[in-house]
Amino acid sequence: MRSQRLRVFAPATIANIGPGFDVLGLALSTPGDVLEVELADGPGVEIVEITGDGGRLTRDPMKNVASRAAVDLLRRAGDTHGLRLWLHKQMPLASGLGSSGASSAAGAFAANEILGRPFSTHDVVLSAIEGECAASGTPHADNVAPSVMGGFVLVRGGEPFDIVQLPVPDGLRVVVVHPHCQVSTAAARRLVKERTYGLDVIVPNIGNVAALVAALYVGDLQLLGRSIDDRIIEPLRATLIPGFDDVKNAALDAGALGCSIAGSGPSVFAFAEADGDAQRIGAAMQAAFRSAAQLDSDLFWGKVSTEGARVL
Amino acid sequence: MRSQRLRVFAPATIANIGPGFDVLGLALSTPGDVLEVELADGPGVEIVEITGDGGRLTRDPMKNVASRAAVDLLRRAGDTHGLRLWLHKQMPLASGLGSSGASSAAGAFAANEILGRPFSTHDVVLSAIEGECAASGTPHADNVAPSVMGGFVLVRGGEPFDIVQLPVPDGLRVVVVHPHCQVSTAAARRLVKERTYGLDVIVPNIGNVAALVAALYVGDLQLLGRSIDDRIIEPLRATLIPGFDDVKNAALDAGALGCSIAGSGPSVFAFAEADGDAQRIGAAMQAAFRSAAQLDSDLFWGKVSTEGARVL
Repeated sequence: MRSQRLRVFAPATIANIGPGFDVLGLALSTPGDVLEVELADGPGVEIVEITGDGGRLTRDPMKNVASRAAVDLLRRAGDTHGLRLWLHKQMPLASGLGSSGASSAAGAFAANEILGRPFSTHDVVLSAIEGECAASGTPHADNVAPSVMGGFVLVRGGEPFDIVQLPVPDGLRVVVVHPHCQVSTAAARRLVKERTYGLDVIVPNIGNVAALVAALYVGDLQLLGRSIDDRIIEPLRATLIPGFDDVKNAALDAGALGCSIAGSGPSVFAFAEADGDAQRIGAAMQAAFRSAAQLDSDLFWGKVSTEGARVL
Repeated sequence: MRSQRLRVFAPATIANIGPGFDVLGLALSTPGDVLEVELADGPGVEIVEITGDGGRLTRDPMKNVASRAAVDLLRRAGDTHGLRLWLHKQMPLASGLGSSGASSAAGAFAANEILGRPFSTHDVVLSAIEGECAASGTPHADNVAPSVMGGFVLVRGGEPFDIVQLPVPDGLRVVVVHPHCQVSTAAARRLVKERTYGLDVIVPNIGNVAALVAALYVGDLQLLGRSIDDRIIEPLRATLIPGFDDVKNAALDAGALGCSIAGSGPSVFAFAEADGDAQRIGAAMQAAFRSAAQLDSDLFWGKVSTEGARVL
């Protein structure tokens, strides 16, 4: 069994959801990364091929997030096997949709599967975080955890590190529009990390994130939408996304429950309560990116994926 | 029926719970305020008597929080009746246990009851907030709302203002120790409002408040305890409470799930998971106040009150 080639899928994610900076993420049904993995004869992890990245990702197995996550899981397992990896990027890079998180999740998940599942999902998440952190310097657990686990995930730092899977209301639909422009994640983080904030914005964010979690448990989509109100990060990062205000207004005018920046942008997400709403909202957001900022964009919409990473 | 005298009870509360500054409050089983109310022949609200306050509270019906809350509810009702009130303070003032919140809650609740319940609980909360705000200048909705409604309550500011009642896990016990010293609420607010805070403390608080809400829904008392971790307010306000660090350590050493400041202090609360634990933790906290700060104290412990304000 161990000599087979496995194909796994790990979904794109939205992190920093509304008021939940570095805390709340969710898994999208589409897009995502596909990773193929085989056990190798000798030790070490080799990246045989990467497709779909336009040559932008490193093939160095100690620097690539997918391979580093796999290396970390092998190390935990005390396993001396080696792995061969084929990574197929099927989602935009640097889009705010957790591209490196999905690759990290795929690497850790694929390694765990091909070893016969020695580890729990929680441990797979920890290896995926470690992989991403070691390769990119910054862990985004709120991307990585939902990509592995699926659903809405809450990350509480501290000892112990808590990863809590939250309920996904039945009717909820997610719309994401990815405009064809670049926002540097590092620049986006600097912009918000160098400042300090008063209780006038902190208290609303604390109330909103608490209400958002409650809304998921009771399935109150209206409350969920009202809670997508971030006074801390969004006002700063919105300045990095051409046309953001128009796109957000277009989403809300078209019936979105709430709308904010996906990850560190430039993608913008909205919540909707039906398929028809989601399509209409997505079209309005794409039109607004065109008219306000002359930007073409990709549209993704659907349910929150409750599956997360999986074998294809 | 309207000519009878009604006696109502409104419980003391803990607001600013852990990471939930101005957002999360809970109702205690004991202590609380008792308010008697009668319909008057003419218009206007009269405070006939206040007991238990050592003469510290105003009898001016437009300045006293209980009467102002009652006035606001009468106004909403378009009711031209007058009321006569007897307020019996049965809890310490300026203790961090929501004394003015309980009086406001009692005033609004009693007025609604004697008028034959024209308003929903939500509206009673709004009148109680209005009463407290008009009289003291600062609304503490996270005190007022749990005193009216009972249980754990989440207050989300914004339009509309959301008040969400959260589940109360069965086994949860609350311990509160009120040391005999004074902390000015105004000074405690100034101390935290004049500062700004970085993401290094904001993100943990956002994660903790989100996890706290999730812990209540799933009934995970250990996670609840870990989430009582406030990096923003507690470090500053702890300096106003003699012996706080020793008291907190004593609570945790005695098995408390979590421990922090009640309201703006000086009371300190802890969570426990059994009656025996709660008694032991309370005794340890009282002993620590004595040995570290030579302070006597009152101990209250029990379940979270799920009833809130009620007719006696």
